[in-house]
Amino acid sequence: MAALEHVRHFQAELEHLKARLLEMGGLAEEQVRLSVKALVDRDHDLIERVMAGDGALNSLHIEIDQRCFTLLALYQPMAVDLRAIVAAVKINTDLERVGDLAINIAEAARQYVQHPPVKKLIDIPRMASLAQSMLRDALDAFVRRDTALAKHVLDEDDSLDDLKTQIFRELMTYMLQDPATIQPALDLILISRHLERIGDHATNVAEDVIFMVSAKDVRHHSADGGG
Amino acid sequence: MAALEHVRHFQAELEHLKARLLEMGGLAEEQVRLSVKALVDRDHDLIERVMAGDGALNSLHIEIDQRCFTLLALYQPMAVDLRAIVAAVKINTDLERVGDLAINIAEAARQYVQHPPVKKLIDIPRMASLAQSMLRDALDAFVRRDTALAKHVLDEDDSLDDLKTQIFRELMTYMLQDPATIQPALDLILISRHLERIGDHATNVAEDVIFMVSAKDVRHHSADGGG
Repeated sequence: MAALEHVRHFQAELEHLKARLLEMGGLAEEQVRLSVKALVDRDHDLIERVMAGDGALNSLHIEIDQRCFTLLALYQPMAVDLRAIVAAVKINTDLERVGDLAINIAEAARQYVQHPPVKKLIDIPRMASLAQSMLRDALDAFVRRDTALAKHVLDEDDSLDDLKTQIFRELMTYMLQDPATIQPALDLILISRHLERIGDHATNVAEDVIFMVSAKDVRHHSADGGG
Repeated sequence: MAALEHVRHFQAELEHLKARLLEMGGLAEEQVRLSVKALVDRDHDLIERVMAGDGALNSLHIEIDQRCFTLLALYQPMAVDLRAIVAAVKINTDLERVGDLAINIAEAARQYVQHPPVKKLIDIPRMASLAQSMLRDALDAFVRRDTALAKHVLDEDDSLDDLKTQIFRELMTYMLQDPATIQPALDLILISRHLERIGDHATNVAEDVIFMVSAKDVRHHSADGGG
């Protein structure tokens, strides 16, 4: 019975860990959403709020890391459970970086709103909502051990890349036509890069999910590709 | 005697893991060095070589991850040994990203050399050698469990940030004066961001080392800081 009890405790702790990761994912996603909303609305207060708003994320980051260590040390899990906890360590890192990137977006937005708008922002909010949904799907895939959903996230990354390239080309045209747009256009280009990186983190999470479930490594699948 | 044997095997495997991580660090650092050398020398062949050159890094990435799982599953390490292996999982991820960033630098260099040089490159090679030495120090700190060296890496990150800001200001001046420099100057700005991120990865490694040795979390030390 003691062994069964042990297993039951472990499963309860693992569920708790997943719940905290989902919570952290929600916070990170909300920071991204608000940072781009602040940019689009040119909302100075919201920009400052995003920049000050990663305290909860940082506390969760430390707490989740600690939970993972405790689970590894106390329960010495094997196979898929072991992979789930190591995946949680990695996902935790990815989510913390997403929070940092939301701050970076807010910083660039603060610069951007000091100039007249370069153009109506359409593709950047589109990138943001795509990156957010990738993040949400990747975390759902982790919790439900759903490799099909994880693979869907990997596919979506291409659309994000396409949007980034399109934004770059368009802004380059503005910059070449009117030097006054160089500085603000650069802020937008950097924001699109931050959003691209948020998509990369969602992709990392999705790859970890596939490895966790199938013990199959889908990273570096294209022989000499960029990883 | 069996228990002692077990411990001895574990320590040997752990040393092997560290050696592989150092090897991976060396490869990542070399890719960074070559990518910036290719940029400075406007060396098309070297650019292509860097872009095709992360196969070894990617194989090591998968191998090291596998070693970490095996060590966790077979030896169920505790305390500092457990923290060392979880640190190795994270460091492995950081090094793989450094390799990706070297590829990103080479991609931007390929764009850059299509235009006449904007200026003599001085600060970018300086950023590169600083980022490389941060990476080397962070890995040495890991292997030697040297927190003083790890803290030194954290301090160096400020110099890297300063160089990045300086590069940005200088290139902005060029772009405003001569629209023909906009595109190549942008490539240099992006390269400086890639180098900054390499420094961030070295910083991550250094933070992991401090946590591994002291079980003390130095991340998010400034109350509401960007992490």
